[in-house]
Amino acid sequence: MVVVMTSEATAEEVEAVVRTVEAAGGDAFVSRGVHRTIVGLVGDVERFETLNLAALPGVSDVVRISSAYKLVSRENHPETSTVTVAGVPIGPDTFTLIAGPCAVETEEQTIAAAEMAKAAGAVLLRGGAFKPRTSPYAFQGLGEAGLKILAEAREKTGLPVVTEVVDAADVPLVADYADMLQIGTRNMQNFALLQAVGSIGKPVMLKRGLNATIEEWLMAAEYIAQRGNLDIVLCERGIRTFETAYRNTLDVSAVPVVHSLSHLPVMVDPSHAGGKRELVVPLARAAIAVGADAIMVDLHPEPGAALCDGPQALVDVDLEALTKAVREMPPMLGRRVVTIEG
Amino acid sequence: MVVVMTSEATAEEVEAVVRTVEAAGGDAFVSRGVHRTIVGLVGDVERFETLNLAALPGVSDVVRISSAYKLVSRENHPETSTVTVAGVPIGPDTFTLIAGPCAVETEEQTIAAAEMAKAAGAVLLRGGAFKPRTSPYAFQGLGEAGLKILAEAREKTGLPVVTEVVDAADVPLVADYADMLQIGTRNMQNFALLQAVGSIGKPVMLKRGLNATIEEWLMAAEYIAQRGNLDIVLCERGIRTFETAYRNTLDVSAVPVVHSLSHLPVMVDPSHAGGKRELVVPLARAAIAVGADAIMVDLHPEPGAALCDGPQALVDVDLEALTKAVREMPPMLGRRVVTIEG
Amino acid sequence: MVVVMTSEATAEEVEAVVRTVEAAGGDAFVSRGVHRTIVGLVGDVERFETLNLAALPGVSDVVRISSAYKLVSRENHPETSTVTVAGVPIGPDTFTLIAGPCAVETEEQTIAAAEMAKAAGAVLLRGGAFKPRTSPYAFQGLGEAGLKILAEAREKTGLPVVTEVVDAADVPLVADYADMLQIGTRNMQNFALLQAVGSIGKPVMLKRGLNATIEEWLMAAEYIAQRGNLDIVLCERGIRTFETAYRNTLDVSAVPVVHSLSHLPVMVDPSHAGGKRELVVPLARAAIAVGADAIMVDLHPEPGAALCDGPQALVDVDLEALTKAVREMPPMLGRRVVTIEG
Amino acid sequence: MVVVMTSEATAEEVEAVVRTVEAAGGDAFVSRGVHRTIVGLVGDVERFETLNLAALPGVSDVVRISSAYKLVSRENHPETSTVTVAGVPIGPDTFTLIAGPCAVETEEQTIAAAEMAKAAGAVLLRGGAFKPRTSPYAFQGLGEAGLKILAEAREKTGLPVVTEVVDAADVPLVADYADMLQIGTRNMQNFALLQAVGSIGKPVMLKRGLNATIEEWLMAAEYIAQRGNLDIVLCERGIRTFETAYRNTLDVSAVPVVHSLSHLPVMVDPSHAGGKRELVVPLARAAIAVGADAIMVDLHPEPGAALCDGPQALVDVDLEALTKAVREMPPMLGRRVVTIEG
Repeated sequence: MVVVMTSEATAEEVEAVVRTVEAAGGDAFVSRGVHRTIVGLVGDVERFETLNLAALPGVSDVVRISSAYKLVSRENHPETSTVTVAGVPIGPDTFTLIAGPCAVETEEQTIAAAEMAKAAGAVLLRGGAFKPRTSPYAFQGLGEAGLKILAEAREKTGLPVVTEVVDAADVPLVADYADMLQIGTRNMQNFALLQAVGSIGKPVMLKRGLNATIEEWLMAAEYIAQRGNLDIVLCERGIRTFETAYRNTLDVSAVPVVHSLSHLPVMVDPSHAGGKRELVVPLARAAIAVGADAIMVDLHPEPGAALCDGPQALVDVDLEALTKAVREMPPMLGRRVVTIEG
Repeated sequence: MVVVMTSEATAEEVEAVVRTVEAAGGDAFVSRGVHRTIVGLVGDVERFETLNLAALPGVSDVVRISSAYKLVSRENHPETSTVTVAGVPIGPDTFTLIAGPCAVETEEQTIAAAEMAKAAGAVLLRGGAFKPRTSPYAFQGLGEAGLKILAEAREKTGLPVVTEVVDAADVPLVADYADMLQIGTRNMQNFALLQAVGSIGKPVMLKRGLNATIEEWLMAAEYIAQRGNLDIVLCERGIRTFETAYRNTLDVSAVPVVHSLSHLPVMVDPSHAGGKRELVVPLARAAIAVGADAIMVDLHPEPGAALCDGPQALVDVDLEALTKAVREMPPMLGRRVVTIEG
Repeated sequence: MVVVMTSEATAEEVEAVVRTVEAAGGDAFVSRGVHRTIVGLVGDVERFETLNLAALPGVSDVVRISSAYKLVSRENHPETSTVTVAGVPIGPDTFTLIAGPCAVETEEQTIAAAEMAKAAGAVLLRGGAFKPRTSPYAFQGLGEAGLKILAEAREKTGLPVVTEVVDAADVPLVADYADMLQIGTRNMQNFALLQAVGSIGKPVMLKRGLNATIEEWLMAAEYIAQRGNLDIVLCERGIRTFETAYRNTLDVSAVPVVHSLSHLPVMVDPSHAGGKRELVVPLARAAIAVGADAIMVDLHPEPGAALCDGPQALVDVDLEALTKAVREMPPMLGRRVVTIEG
Repeated sequence: MVVVMTSEATAEEVEAVVRTVEAAGGDAFVSRGVHRTIVGLVGDVERFETLNLAALPGVSDVVRISSAYKLVSRENHPETSTVTVAGVPIGPDTFTLIAGPCAVETEEQTIAAAEMAKAAGAVLLRGGAFKPRTSPYAFQGLGEAGLKILAEAREKTGLPVVTEVVDAADVPLVADYADMLQIGTRNMQNFALLQAVGSIGKPVMLKRGLNATIEEWLMAAEYIAQRGNLDIVLCERGIRTFETAYRNTLDVSAVPVVHSLSHLPVMVDPSHAGGKRELVVPLARAAIAVGADAIMVDLHPEPGAALCDGPQALVDVDLEALTKAVREMPPMLGRRVVTIEG
């Protein structure tokens, strides 16, 4: 930490900062400049943060230098992690396609979508049984009945299942059926839910909040990791900006930036970012090219009848283009494409 | 709802829209222009939304006209509501000051803060026993012990208590102690929590999400209202923008805009918006001037020692300015200032 | 400036930073911590910025401490400035109302608007002869004919004139007619234009860019000041955010923040921020309350027929409320309301 | 255009809208719903926009349907355009690499950078002689001397030159030396400059404003096109968001969205978006993958000594990766890579 004094700070005010830090068991190094004095702190940063140094007289700014997350930081864990979901790897050497319906609606629709997903090269099946919806009047998911349908689709296709959990109280139930638990964008800072999935012993996909900084996202992952679960895959899905020509702005830069800050794998959801079918394949290509470890796409056997996000579900012709990109691009970047055989 | 066709849409495509709407029990009116055709829909909008009209061939855009919330909408409830918290009104004719410590730390600190609040003119006491914190390493609150301290402070000062609840499972516990339940900014779309407070029969303060549009905020309120609880006060507390010179951008425009869209009272939290002591009083004045029904400020008997958000807690000299503004400004706008006597 | 090294930086890399700074005539102070080393720099910051220290091996971050603007900074000029426009003050002790039509359309409309403005208490007349418009198909202003109409309105009402200039080549022409030159939001970083108004010897109103940080706004003002013109009034007019319920988000916090960073007066344009008539008066009140030195509002004798921004122009009933707020609120904050008599 | 009436609008108010439209030579079609009435307008939209229909009593909203740009719209020009810069194509069938130094500093540096660019596969040389800088204290470019150096570098390498113009008055001078004129992000709405390059008969690269919506960007292009110059290439370079972990958020979605709305070619500048060397190659790959027609990167023979944006300039090892991506990826997407031979 560095404490920057105001240009009018007195020697007494600088001294008071030093004494406060030392009283808390830290060391303080003073550098006097022509216009400003700065004080470098060495010791326990969490302890320093409770000191409210910014509120001391003569202090202009307090700059944190070390990162606010530890377990998920690359600083203490230089090699990139691979998370394995029922045998399917997501990590630095491979590329993994996840696909399935936005929402589980019926057994027929889910199984048809799972078969489309498998035919397109997906090795994990996504599908929502609990849907967090902005409007209380929108379709909220089938709940446990949906989880049973997903288990059946897994039985039929062999694809392990990724599904969202929205309430801490539902975590054990969802974990009974799912191979990977998804935390959605609106719940990225639902700390009770993060702690619950941190204790359950199943891999977790943590979507970035619509307006979360990368640092906050990593701190949310730290909540999960603190409970002993480090099988976390981070999923970028678009952030909120002033642009209105599409749903959200896919932040592709987040992929290499998170890779540089954290050892966790990073994936991209191009379907929810753009919110329009014609954007999914171009954004999926961009995600692969920028270095994502996996992507997840929505598909539906009959998008026009979908109860959730039909306009972004892929249809046959897009799936061909997607399959081609997933097969051809990762090897160019030195990655092996994960297939159903392994 | 209005369906806007693309400029190349064929007569068959327009006809398909009409048939789809009629099959769902609605009426469709076609207006053909030189460049575009539009189709106006009349009937059950929720039903229409499940039709995915935007995915039909030839459709360029679907524009919703009626609002997505009903119970909290002014459209069906033209007079503004007053919410009463243990006898203290928050509504269109009055102005209410809420104050207290960001976090309950000790009995002494809380009671001292409550007395400062009362002396400054506050008629409700705020204080956090459960603190949702971005970092898992930050102080997370005292939990039930904190609720007991708040109850004691209420006993001593006579001020009813507003406190945050962060987990649906804790709602009954918190409701046992609190007079008003606060939903924090990170939980605005924690739908399980919204439904839980909707069923508990205590007034609710719903903070706007850091990244929430006004429409999403009102839909979050609708989740509470749907469970039968209409005693909701909306609280603006700053939104996330590109500006970094202060914590968040206080969106004062939201106050008159929400008043025009909803019958619910609207208040402002100037302390968390700016995040700096010297901004609290100016922003409090702006909030009163723009038409807020209440404001809520952080204070602390010894801000330099606060475990949470000390740098924004008011000290004596600011409190005087705040008290003056609270006394003088609301009457200029035709509002009576609520006092402890009523 | 402070250079923060990465946690893996070697002693040689730290030494290289020190040598680079010393070779450039500066001093470097090294503070070694347990995890990181930081280097504090003392000397010519502009020179240091050309060194690209961030590109040296082992450097994690370079933190600038002193501000990037000097002439407009409060650091070197602690007392707040008053800018005088043809005898009318804008500064810390007074409150100034500026009003007039968004665009000059005809002589009749302009003179009628100027008389409305004067009746409402305005002491400066605004009006656009050159209109920068997002669409090339929108009304672009009357040009010099508009300037002549403004001069005539000044003649009739005695109100000095504020008008926008959009091209560096037009500055001498506009300065011939106007008492204060306005730089619009889209031109905040049109550096050729800033330099031109910096050389012309007339007061300048510099609107904040729609997406400009406060720091960039002050650096834009510095461009004007560098050419010798310190008669600059900064005008906040709303920033671009994700919210779509109104035009732009009025950033009231910018007023006290700029006052703390700069000695220049700060004003607010509530009409362009909200873009809707019903928001103008509440936002004007908020602007006065938060400490603005002046406000500027659009009005039109017949808003329904306006060629530019009619929906935000005030009509009679709003003007009464505005006049009342302008008369009553500034004195509460210790300011004298400037009247036509002085 | 569609006029949406409020739910309380009277028949007289609807009738007034119809009469106003008809008086302006348009046709109005009324559709009455259970809750709302909508009026569809047919005729001259620009004329309708001057009517301020939103200000009429009973009107809730006015929705524009046709686009605000015509000459650059795909609607009237379905095939994608190819812009040719001194023989080098930028368009739908090819992929074009543009590279060079951010700023022209010396003859040696510029020629060395031009040779690096050519060796890496670039077919156009970028380089700034006029630099718009946020701070008036930053290096502002060499001006005409820089243009002469660029002309010399063209002579030596055979690469046509792209360079920025910042002032309408300089357009003829810059056009004498350059093969393509660049409008920078801060000048996207400098309408005088847009009109000047629209009249000069040289291809133009129009960068997106940091805060510009896609629609505003296309309207800025329309300003150029209106003066008779349709040789415009749009360049995405990152937008401003709340994220602070990198400079700007590269909006890759803008590429397919602009391609769907406009016939103009679209390119990407990954160097200025990320602002960090290690992001340039990943973002360049993402840009190619998402469908950009060209990319432009900064390079410098000695980045540590650069006077402008050194930290983002590519060095040898990055250039190899870039060259590989430029050779391998476009053919996968059906594009021919433009080489110096043609």
